Amino acid sequence: MAGVMQPASESNANSEQRGELELVRRLRTMLGQPGGARVAFGDDMCQLVPDDDTLLGTVDMLMDGVDFDSREHSWEAIGRKAMAVNLSDCAAMAVVPVSALCAVALNANMTMDAAVELHRGAHEFGLRYACPIVGGDTNSWPAPTAISISITARVAPGTTPVRRNGGLAGVRIFVTGPSGGSILGRHMTFEPRVELALDISRRLRPHAMIDISDGLALDLGRVLTASGCGAVLDEAALEAVIHPDARLLAERDGRSPRDHTLHDGEDFELIVVLPAEVPDQDWRPLGLLPIGRVASEEGLFLEHADGQRAAIPMRGWEHFK
Amino acid sequence: MAGVMQPASESNANSEQRGELELVRRLRTMLGQPGGARVAFGDDMCQLVPDDDTLLGTVDMLMDGVDFDSREHSWEAIGRKAMAVNLSDCAAMAVVPVSALCAVALNANMTMDAAVELHRGAHEFGLRYACPIVGGDTNSWPAPTAISISITARVAPGTTPVRRNGGLAGVRIFVTGPSGGSILGRHMTFEPRVELALDISRRLRPHAMIDISDGLALDLGRVLTASGCGAVLDEAALEAVIHPDARLLAERDGRSPRDHTLHDGEDFELIVVLPAEVPDQDWRPLGLLPIGRVASEEGLFLEHADGQRAAIPMRGWEHFK
Repeated sequence: MAGVMQPASESNANSEQRGELELVRRLRTMLGQPGGARVAFGDDMCQLVPDDDTLLGTVDMLMDGVDFDSREHSWEAIGRKAMAVNLSDCAAMAVVPVSALCAVALNANMTMDAAVELHRGAHEFGLRYACPIVGGDTNSWPAPTAISISITARVAPGTTPVRRNGGLAGVRIFVTGPSGGSILGRHMTFEPRVELALDISRRLRPHAMIDISDGLALDLGRVLTASGCGAVLDEAALEAVIHPDARLLAERDGRSPRDHTLHDGEDFELIVVLPAEVPDQDWRPLGLLPIGRVASEEGLFLEHADGQRAAIPMRGWEHFK
Repeated sequence: MAGVMQPASESNANSEQRGELELVRRLRTMLGQPGGARVAFGDDMCQLVPDDDTLLGTVDMLMDGVDFDSREHSWEAIGRKAMAVNLSDCAAMAVVPVSALCAVALNANMTMDAAVELHRGAHEFGLRYACPIVGGDTNSWPAPTAISISITARVAPGTTPVRRNGGLAGVRIFVTGPSGGSILGRHMTFEPRVELALDISRRLRPHAMIDISDGLALDLGRVLTASGCGAVLDEAALEAVIHPDARLLAERDGRSPRDHTLHDGEDFELIVVLPAEVPDQDWRPLGLLPIGRVASEEGLFLEHADGQRAAIPMRGWEHFK
């Protein structure tokens, strides 16, 4: 599993001009905001048709040795994950997936049965969300296998897509479940929060949402950057969202469980930013776990019980180091 | 350029159970025909939204060393091609592209400037067809660069998408331009026939169309297979669509110019199947070049001036050998 899903190094996170965040920033500048599009490059999904704001699209590429390990995982499980990460983008926007396209560059040594299993894993998992594979492109080459799935999704009646940039000072930050240590297995088997996200969107009208793909701190950082504000996480609340896998991994590698919860990637729970006035009886039944609040001061901080604060680096998994 | 775009070997073409055609056949069977979808896996594009037949999607993955050579081609030219092959799929269906998603697995040694140039090449070429990149996914890995672009397209008012399976005995087969020898350079610089395809669709109501991505004989074979019929190509007419590059390449490698025209990939001209009764004055102004006619007898044949026929192997470029 070496090389799979290692978090970006500190030095990398500190030299953003070389990282994925900087590449995305440059691409956004170069591509511009498409005319009239409500959602653009850099959010979890984007508007597909200029004059129709009810259809959104997303794409994710998964690569052998980076996002999965074909020596360890079955091709069906790999296909499932390739579909699931895209469905998680739909969850992050609280929209309804309707179909998928699947393009593959298959390693030349792969059998045709394996190629079919890969597609079956993606298709059957997609079908559970009424999101079948409807088309694709098959290729082979001598390099490791790469899989690119793109999904079209529809805005549910009576809702609007939930973007990243709605953070406002004082509003509360929640997660939909514990995080950290997903590398022990959950990164291949997680359930995307599609239905839950629609419930949250309909009932709670969140200011912002994002899925935890690259790490709680980094993905929350994306919300904060998009919203032009900062956040303060509560130490005790954060303790309550440490996944048992984070503790298990911490015992092995000497990093703290909290460090894993903040900086491990691929949990695919949602970060949900809610209006401060949403009463407890509204969010509790949905299983949301509070972790902190958005602040006007920029930066991400951990607040201890005594009121002292420590900066949390907004690092996690970054491609293109 | 070794390894780039070599045609499938005879033995490969003759053992289809191991080739891409067979993989696509198995995937179609496994995936089934999505409920109510008018266009499905195996055509150039597919319907994206179950109850909306006006939106189609397509995806193509391009890989370094297979579809382009980063030692030889600029990243801007590579991005242009990645967009152009998808636009050619839109041409093949005679629909209007509206937006693109671009997912990349970038070789880790690539500079950020190169990554931006790649996207710029794709985006600016897309903009010429009112098809900007609106979103994407950036990744890096130690393997060669792979680029996956998916396009959403709209059915133009008063038209229907032109499928592959409308071939009928006796109807005539045309191409939109000469082919063969694209490896000499045109495979990177071709113009997708988007506008011409819409003209053809509106004025001539074609039975079937496909773009020549994997070779005239192989792509025509796809139309014939989908339509359950065969075709007879006229020797003299075929002579008239041999591209000068096919002759140039033939001088170098000893294959015949006609062999290059029939079996080279990536010309991205269209094969157009028209009703027999379309008068000459209707198709001539559109620059169409007649090459033969669809026949009820299965198989692809070359007819000489004396009426003798020879079988043409339906081979070309196949991925997943």
